[in-house]
Amino acid sequence: MASKNSDKFEFTKYIGDRRVQIEEALDQALSLDIDMPNTLRESMRYSLLNDGKRLRPILCLAACELAGGAVDQAMLTAVALEMIHTSALIHDDLPPMNNYDLRQGRPTNHKVYGEAMAILAGNSLLVRAFEMISRSPGVPAERLLAVVGEISLASGAPGLMGGQVVDLECEGKEVNLETLEYIHLHKTGSLLRASVVSGAIIGGADENLIEALRVYAKCICLVFQISDDILDFTANAEVLGKTDGRDLIADKSAYLKLLGLARCRRRVKSLVTESKQALEPYNQNGLAEPLLALIDYIVNRTE
Amino acid sequence: MASKNSDKFEFTKYIGDRRVQIEEALDQALSLDIDMPNTLRESMRYSLLNDGKRLRPILCLAACELAGGAVDQAMLTAVALEMIHTSALIHDDLPPMNNYDLRQGRPTNHKVYGEAMAILAGNSLLVRAFEMISRSPGVPAERLLAVVGEISLASGAPGLMGGQVVDLECEGKEVNLETLEYIHLHKTGSLLRASVVSGAIIGGADENLIEALRVYAKCICLVFQISDDILDFTANAEVLGKTDGRDLIADKSAYLKLLGLARCRRRVKSLVTESKQALEPYNQNGLAEPLLALIDYIVNRTE
Repeated sequence: MASKNSDKFEFTKYIGDRRVQIEEALDQALSLDIDMPNTLRESMRYSLLNDGKRLRPILCLAACELAGGAVDQAMLTAVALEMIHTSALIHDDLPPMNNYDLRQGRPTNHKVYGEAMAILAGNSLLVRAFEMISRSPGVPAERLLAVVGEISLASGAPGLMGGQVVDLECEGKEVNLETLEYIHLHKTGSLLRASVVSGAIIGGADENLIEALRVYAKCICLVFQISDDILDFTANAEVLGKTDGRDLIADKSAYLKLLGLARCRRRVKSLVTESKQALEPYNQNGLAEPLLALIDYIVNRTE
Repeated sequence: MASKNSDKFEFTKYIGDRRVQIEEALDQALSLDIDMPNTLRESMRYSLLNDGKRLRPILCLAACELAGGAVDQAMLTAVALEMIHTSALIHDDLPPMNNYDLRQGRPTNHKVYGEAMAILAGNSLLVRAFEMISRSPGVPAERLLAVVGEISLASGAPGLMGGQVVDLECEGKEVNLETLEYIHLHKTGSLLRASVVSGAIIGGADENLIEALRVYAKCICLVFQISDDILDFTANAEVLGKTDGRDLIADKSAYLKLLGLARCRRRVKSLVTESKQALEPYNQNGLAEPLLALIDYIVNRTE
């Protein structure tokens, strides 16, 4: 599964370059010349500009290039996807939801700006996303309208929000594999799928490529979740002597509990194969390389 | 200012017919065949289908017809506007915001479904709005994309959300006229403006008509707020013998405190004149009648 060193270097550079472009676009999207109350802007910027992985924007831009489009055409949609993702995190951290005080080592939005502002900042990022899409340069209006529909469905009740609701309803309960995957594929998978599909629509993809990207997105969502669980489990095994690590095993290793380590690893392997097979027909000119390398990158975290 | 009886009757029938059409479209927009968790659908439906005035949808449809479009073309955008309005009310009622237990005599959304679900239902209505717009039948994609941009700006940080932030920040403080009108024109006025402008864009309006509708929307927003304050004040004057009515005077009569009753009435009169002058050039064929009658309807509540 390990990539060759030369590939790895290329991928690291690719991701690094993309992140620089994306950070700049995110910064501009909430710049001072946009008229809004300053506290609201600060609260939105606090959570949006936070050194995140920018996975969704990277997927969107890569899919747009794979479909024959240019990065500039998809950049505002890439920004929109990160805004929606950030909005969901801000609201997810609120006391009535997960009640988290910290996210990646920083105080959560409501800890800094208060709960009311965090609700409004989340809402503001959520709607601003659609304005971003609507202003994308050099893309036919029909395509952008299709992107609006795709992203709205993915981030709403039939997608992300629906996943959050089922996640809430299952809190503290044992869930079966079907429910666990419903939650992952909606709470996380929907927006990952919308990221590649939107990029592909903007780039002018046909229905076959879009379908291949849907398969790819579903696979990377599940690979990500399962390998996260494997990572937690193996990390815990190492530190169990020092701390009891109970929280991590109880809350985060749902896949391990349901399938066991060996079946988890087999599942990851078959998902990786499925995702690569979906994209390989489109890789004659090497344009699928970033998306293919991303899969290896996600898996290699656990090996 | 009073309308003739015949006009009044026509207007009542017009509004009644529109509401029937709008209720049906709202019901369909969250019907059982749309895939989402049932509790989420119920929570969304509870607040969306609540016997509201449907002012924003009515404005949108009337403006579309005034611009030469058909009701069917604007109906999904009308639904979208009501979804955004409802989303704002659900979140506005939450404990960290206004902490209301009741809205128009019914328990608020979070009182019935819990705070977490109320946050997610509000979010879901907010994003579903954009999917509605994107599916509007028989409207060129360019126009729908302009509507997405208009409504996103109006409901986001530069509009509704910005107004809510300033409103929150001014809670319990004396505000001057400039701040009071900033709050009204953003928290309420932005979406009223987007309602008529979106309808007009869908109907194919030129920039002059759109500008006239912006003036109209600003006027009805302020007329609505000032006449509300007058209404509260005069109602209080009647009941002051029975209750002390302090709350109403303290919280709701901001205009009365800043301008006094006589200047408030003069302000309403001049706003009514301004709004009618803006639309009259477009009323040769009588298509502006619903919007003109709506102004009188708002004002006559207070006389």
